[in-house]
Amino acid sequence: MQIQADRNAPVGVFDSGVGGLTVAREIMRQIPEERIVYFGDTARVPYGSKSRDTIVRYSRQIIRFLRTQQVKAIVIACNTASAYALDTVAAETDIPVIGVINAGARTAVGATRNGRIGVIGTEATIGSGIYTRVMQEMRPEVQVIGKSCPLFCPLVEEGLLHDSVTDEIASRYLSELKGKYIDTLVLGCTHYPLLRSTLRRLMGEDVVLVNPAYETAIELKGLLREQGLSRDPDAPFAGDQYQFFVSDLAEKFTDFATSILPNEVKETKKIQIENY
Amino acid sequence: MQIQADRNAPVGVFDSGVGGLTVAREIMRQIPEERIVYFGDTARVPYGSKSRDTIVRYSRQIIRFLRTQQVKAIVIACNTASAYALDTVAAETDIPVIGVINAGARTAVGATRNGRIGVIGTEATIGSGIYTRVMQEMRPEVQVIGKSCPLFCPLVEEGLLHDSVTDEIASRYLSELKGKYIDTLVLGCTHYPLLRSTLRRLMGEDVVLVNPAYETAIELKGLLREQGLSRDPDAPFAGDQYQFFVSDLAEKFTDFATSILPNEVKETKKIQIENY
Repeated sequence: MQIQADRNAPVGVFDSGVGGLTVAREIMRQIPEERIVYFGDTARVPYGSKSRDTIVRYSRQIIRFLRTQQVKAIVIACNTASAYALDTVAAETDIPVIGVINAGARTAVGATRNGRIGVIGTEATIGSGIYTRVMQEMRPEVQVIGKSCPLFCPLVEEGLLHDSVTDEIASRYLSELKGKYIDTLVLGCTHYPLLRSTLRRLMGEDVVLVNPAYETAIELKGLLREQGLSRDPDAPFAGDQYQFFVSDLAEKFTDFATSILPNEVKETKKIQIENY
Repeated sequence: MQIQADRNAPVGVFDSGVGGLTVAREIMRQIPEERIVYFGDTARVPYGSKSRDTIVRYSRQIIRFLRTQQVKAIVIACNTASAYALDTVAAETDIPVIGVINAGARTAVGATRNGRIGVIGTEATIGSGIYTRVMQEMRPEVQVIGKSCPLFCPLVEEGLLHDSVTDEIASRYLSELKGKYIDTLVLGCTHYPLLRSTLRRLMGEDVVLVNPAYETAIELKGLLREQGLSRDPDAPFAGDQYQFFVSDLAEKFTDFATSILPNEVKETKKIQIENY
């Protein structure tokens, strides 16, 4: 079925806050002709300590908002929302909706040599068991060891990316995974790529670190092409190519976003997401 | 003016999550005959990194919910919501509404000998400057030094109450205050009394630690008496004396609450707060 959407419309990307910008950045790199409407749910961040019901309700509101921006496809750039809400919202939405988990899982099962894969993420993502389920469907013999790292997001949001406290917390979280001789580690939360150098040092050079953002952008590119939804690179832009919306604290978001995307964030608009 | 409320009705107490339980505990201790309806906004916690507009909107919804429980008075058991929303919501509500900041400020200006008072709290509470304003209205010559401690809440919620990482973070946050020779420190977030032993050790025995929860319970007791709203100690209870409601994850809340209030939490009910 060919979808009746405008191929020159933007792609909607959403996250609980700023983490999803690591996914937006990969989409900008790999499909530079696409337009993006980004939404960060900064009034209700974090998602990682909330329930399935709540995450599904929030995701539905965000999708209703993104539809008002005439998006042609949606990327759930948040592992927790992908874990809890993707199946439900994809089934009730008539444009393509993808998450970050399938792409990350596929890369990890392709990368492992010894079949032992670690996954780090929020309490919700790890508690859902979704990475284990998806990876074992792809390759039943892999062993998956999940570990929730609830302090990583607050540490990243405080900017302690290279800090002895972050090292100490990371060392506690990862010691269990190191003891299990994993050779591949999925960074199962969009904040975690910002801790890559700490994680790399603690896990050693031989462990492959998988950033699902990279593979998600590739999946999006293929999906748009398949469905005839790739943007015409010669079509003129009406307005900014990248637009940013949040549910709170637009200026603070712009500051953080500019540290990840130095030239792309012209302004951030605040909306009342519970009205959608 | 005598308020037309039932003196045997419960007191409403609310917070962004579990922190306000330290205030509820003081009310239970000091006015054991009162009934309490507690609401923790666990679907939207934390408040400390959000804007005034958002906190006012959330506080209004919670007050509308508490009114459906026929409360006779409301305690905003959250410093951030007290800082941003108390004046607005108190002016539009026809039952008494009090926060935790006035009570804490009064204790601190009474306790200081050298007139140098430190306040620790969330980014929102410290950024609002409210403790400085309120204390200088009470005693214009005091000097107030505020310091936001954004990682304290996540560390408390992870249970790292006695931990080397918490010590290290606390030592960084407090070093600035120690350099200013304060003799009184206001614990300006309801989570912080749970870190009292760490704070005590770092600040030394000579600094008075002020927990606004204690003084807030005294203020509530006086206010109820003044307004003819003290509960008749002989009136029978219809149902549980203490009731707990949250916007998400009721079981997790019950577990945490039971660690603070071992015998008082029979069950926690989940409601959809954005419907109010």
